[in-house]
Amino acid sequence: MNNTSLKMVVIVAEPVLESRLVKALHDLGATGCSIVDGRGEGSRQAHATDVPGVNIRIEAIVRPEVADRIMAHVAAHYFTHWSLIAYVVDVVVARAGKYG
Amino acid sequence: MNNTSLKMVVIVAEPVLESRLVKALHDLGATGCSIVDGRGEGSRQAHATDVPGVNIRIEAIVRPEVADRIMAHVAAHYFTHWSLIAYVVDVVVARAGKYG
Amino acid sequence: MNNTSLKMVVIVAEPVLESRLVKALHDLGATGCSIVDGRGEGSRQAHATDVPGVNIRIEAIVRPEVADRIMAHVAAHYFTHWSLIAYVVDVVVARAGKYG
Repeated sequence: MNNTSLKMVVIVAEPVLESRLVKALHDLGATGCSIVDGRGEGSRQAHATDVPGVNIRIEAIVRPEVADRIMAHVAAHYFTHWSLIAYVVDVVVARAGKYG
Repeated sequence: MNNTSLKMVVIVAEPVLESRLVKALHDLGATGCSIVDGRGEGSRQAHATDVPGVNIRIEAIVRPEVADRIMAHVAAHYFTHWSLIAYVVDVVVARAGKYG
Repeated sequence: MNNTSLKMVVIVAEPVLESRLVKALHDLGATGCSIVDGRGEGSRQAHATDVPGVNIRIEAIVRPEVADRIMAHVAAHYFTHWSLIAYVVDVVVARAGKYG
């Protein structure tokens, strides 16, 4: 099977950011990503950092150094002005070579 | 980047429970959550514990103690009467302060 | 709470494979699974291994040995001819008995 440990980066953001974020993921080293439409429910205190309303969940499986670049990129370019969540999960994949 | 380890709690449940579960997540300390519509395929043995048909997948990033409270809450209040799945995944986030 | 460590297997594939994959998951020991519709964005280099266009994300919580069987099965039967991604994530569940 040759399973390998990689990282899954997940970004939950407003739909208007989809094409920009997909382009950024590719530019930073992701070979592909998968997107699901969802909706957010913020706290009743209406923190500016929640993502209420319609959103998208972008998921990419990448090497650890690519995950680090993506996290640094979204922190630097999106967190100030956008209600965006980004997190990284350890995953084990089969056929690691396809992830770049 | 100041990345921090947190927990992602995921609940897969019948859509009728959405508002109750979102309120419970907030009451137990989650500052927000993201919801995706899906569908379940139970086993052919039709275990009562599967979630067949239309469902929702609710995802919240929280501190470990909040994850524990949420898991205890759903185990105590939903597992007897509802076909509900709940699990916790380790995640690394940027900007941990937004998760409460 | 009696929480237990299990595995979440996630398969992202073309929608035409849904019934085949769901049957395979059940045959290999999964007691249920949850499916979300999504879309893929492949790299601009159009690697054959990406999953562009409409896709499905199938998620099942299973025991470790079932996860191994599922990963081996998809590697053996799908990777050559289909644009399919499969990965495994560690999860902690409440009420482990329902996962077979």
